[in-house]
Amino acid sequence: MTVDTIQPDLQSIPTPALTIDAAVVRDNIGRLSEYARRAGVGVRPHTKTHKLRHIARMQLEAGAIGLTAAKVSEAAAISDSGEDVLLAYPPIGRHRAEQLAELAKDRTVRAAVDSEAAVEMMADAALQTGATVGLLVDVNVGMDRTGVPTPADALRLAQAIDRSKGLRVDGIMIYPGHIYDPPTKQMTAIGAVNAIVEETLELWQRAGLEASIVSGGSTPTAYQSHLMPRVTEIRAGAYVFNDMNTVRCSYCAIENCAARVVATVVSDAISGQVVIDAGSKSLTRDPSSDPNAGFGYVVEFPEARISKLSEEHGQIDVSACSTRPRIGERLTVIPNHVCPCVNLHDSVWWIEANEAPREVRVDARGKVQ
Amino acid sequence: MTVDTIQPDLQSIPTPALTIDAAVVRDNIGRLSEYARRAGVGVRPHTKTHKLRHIARMQLEAGAIGLTAAKVSEAAAISDSGEDVLLAYPPIGRHRAEQLAELAKDRTVRAAVDSEAAVEMMADAALQTGATVGLLVDVNVGMDRTGVPTPADALRLAQAIDRSKGLRVDGIMIYPGHIYDPPTKQMTAIGAVNAIVEETLELWQRAGLEASIVSGGSTPTAYQSHLMPRVTEIRAGAYVFNDMNTVRCSYCAIENCAARVVATVVSDAISGQVVIDAGSKSLTRDPSSDPNAGFGYVVEFPEARISKLSEEHGQIDVSACSTRPRIGERLTVIPNHVCPCVNLHDSVWWIEANEAPREVRVDARGKVQ
Repeated sequence: MTVDTIQPDLQSIPTPALTIDAAVVRDNIGRLSEYARRAGVGVRPHTKTHKLRHIARMQLEAGAIGLTAAKVSEAAAISDSGEDVLLAYPPIGRHRAEQLAELAKDRTVRAAVDSEAAVEMMADAALQTGATVGLLVDVNVGMDRTGVPTPADALRLAQAIDRSKGLRVDGIMIYPGHIYDPPTKQMTAIGAVNAIVEETLELWQRAGLEASIVSGGSTPTAYQSHLMPRVTEIRAGAYVFNDMNTVRCSYCAIENCAARVVATVVSDAISGQVVIDAGSKSLTRDPSSDPNAGFGYVVEFPEARISKLSEEHGQIDVSACSTRPRIGERLTVIPNHVCPCVNLHDSVWWIEANEAPREVRVDARGKVQ
Repeated sequence: MTVDTIQPDLQSIPTPALTIDAAVVRDNIGRLSEYARRAGVGVRPHTKTHKLRHIARMQLEAGAIGLTAAKVSEAAAISDSGEDVLLAYPPIGRHRAEQLAELAKDRTVRAAVDSEAAVEMMADAALQTGATVGLLVDVNVGMDRTGVPTPADALRLAQAIDRSKGLRVDGIMIYPGHIYDPPTKQMTAIGAVNAIVEETLELWQRAGLEASIVSGGSTPTAYQSHLMPRVTEIRAGAYVFNDMNTVRCSYCAIENCAARVVATVVSDAISGQVVIDAGSKSLTRDPSSDPNAGFGYVVEFPEARISKLSEEHGQIDVSACSTRPRIGERLTVIPNHVCPCVNLHDSVWWIEANEAPREVRVDARGKVQ
């Protein structure tokens, strides 16, 4: 890898700072959009990655069929009246279901459910507001996080939705988040997912239920969507920025990473080490898919390894580097996992070519409810 | 351990929510304050744990001699005009040094340095504002994060400070953050720390330099401060709330943990597991000191194990529990490491006995610069 140098514009902003390269974002959005058009699948980007209203609009303008959010407060912060938003999360809890039904008054709202309790809570809240909420039955395809365990369970739940006033059966949701293999090795796992989807849809058809939506995808499987013929839309999130986990699993290259933390070296007192002002409060402690890789990639010093993080200190082992960063020098770090990293920053710096960096508030940061 | 049940008041707040038990906070502050008085050592609490102006005032009212912050934006957010605040961090970077010098106009400000570059940057900024900043020389006592490596280096740096206009040599700072042994096993490590401090102070004395402050401590070593005779103040932070790491290392009991995340069960679709609405965005991914312990302790289900976290999902293995939480039920989780957990929450719920929970903004959340 070539040694990069930091842009002159980024020498004056207070650090640590999360920067977003607008050209890379546009390129990432355009590439998935073009693939999806050719594959005949809709893109419903997961906005948890960027949390920026501005980027959500860029995605919609590039042809996204709607947005995805993880929590209802996030859905409210990121989507606008008249738009289409999916809560890829069970609407459990009075507050959550009620706020979702409230949103459904002026936009198309859907949620994913994997229990009769969720169906009942959502129906109660929808009836209160008079709005209709579309539900997708969350079917477990191997991630073992949420999702009904069998196609027969999915049918039973769809029938419960179908009996409920204020609700609409819209289809199924799958999350193949367990598939991390590089694209060339994904075939077996994708085949297993297809079999579950196929069996579920067959049962529904026999029971007279239509699944107009089969919501799937993730960044690792996004470009394999043409191998999942029943999937109608993909909920990729990380693709918009990318990160070291997407690089290390061969889904993209370093230059496709739009989000980078600029940090300053604040200490070199310990031999073979420098310390930057970005710790777990700026980068997160999310581990790398490569156990030897440390807590992010230092663009200017590819041989460096961020070996330890405390909240405000990033300890970088520079013993393998031919030259070493000096105190006060700025470094650029690509995080392991960009989604929780964005959540730590009140604002990001938006970088357009030939323009001064512009500070932009992260609209949906901290929306955990 | 006995099975606890959640307070009725906490059944209605939106989840996930971080709650703070005021009585436990007062007890934790009082206990360290009383010990420190007997041991003849000052308490300069690290405010990074709570990030609440309100608690900083409680600590000062209980006799704290000043406050500690990790970043200058945190120091500005948490301390008031006329107060005394230590930046336990190198003032490297123009923005950082200038903002610190600005604060020194109306309060007592000190910072820790481990390089001549830091001394020069701080001197430049202090001269610009006309304020005086006191510096402590950060001496490495085994944590190997920051700090000059030897007592001789500490002397050289103190002499550089002494030659600089706008700066004042105030003493040394140590951070024995590597000492995690239970109190009964800390003696050897504490002896090694004492030896370095003693040698440093002797060199300073011979050179005619006074170290009026020897700033040390951490929550794990706080109650051993009487065994560190040269330490004048301790910068304990976590003691104010405690967490599972302080419990597991025998520094406190479960009932001394003031900060707890209330979460709702949102799925039980996967056998032997329930999912709560608190993931890494509410609890952090900070690991436990016990590798088998998972990502926090579920108060109501002591046999449960939070085995996996994604951003918005906490997957709890309940296979060892005799009864299992139901969908919609609320659980209380004590985080592994409370400091970064607080940083994830825009507000906390302040719980006083016989009062409704009160939502309080976290003043210094997200202050990473």
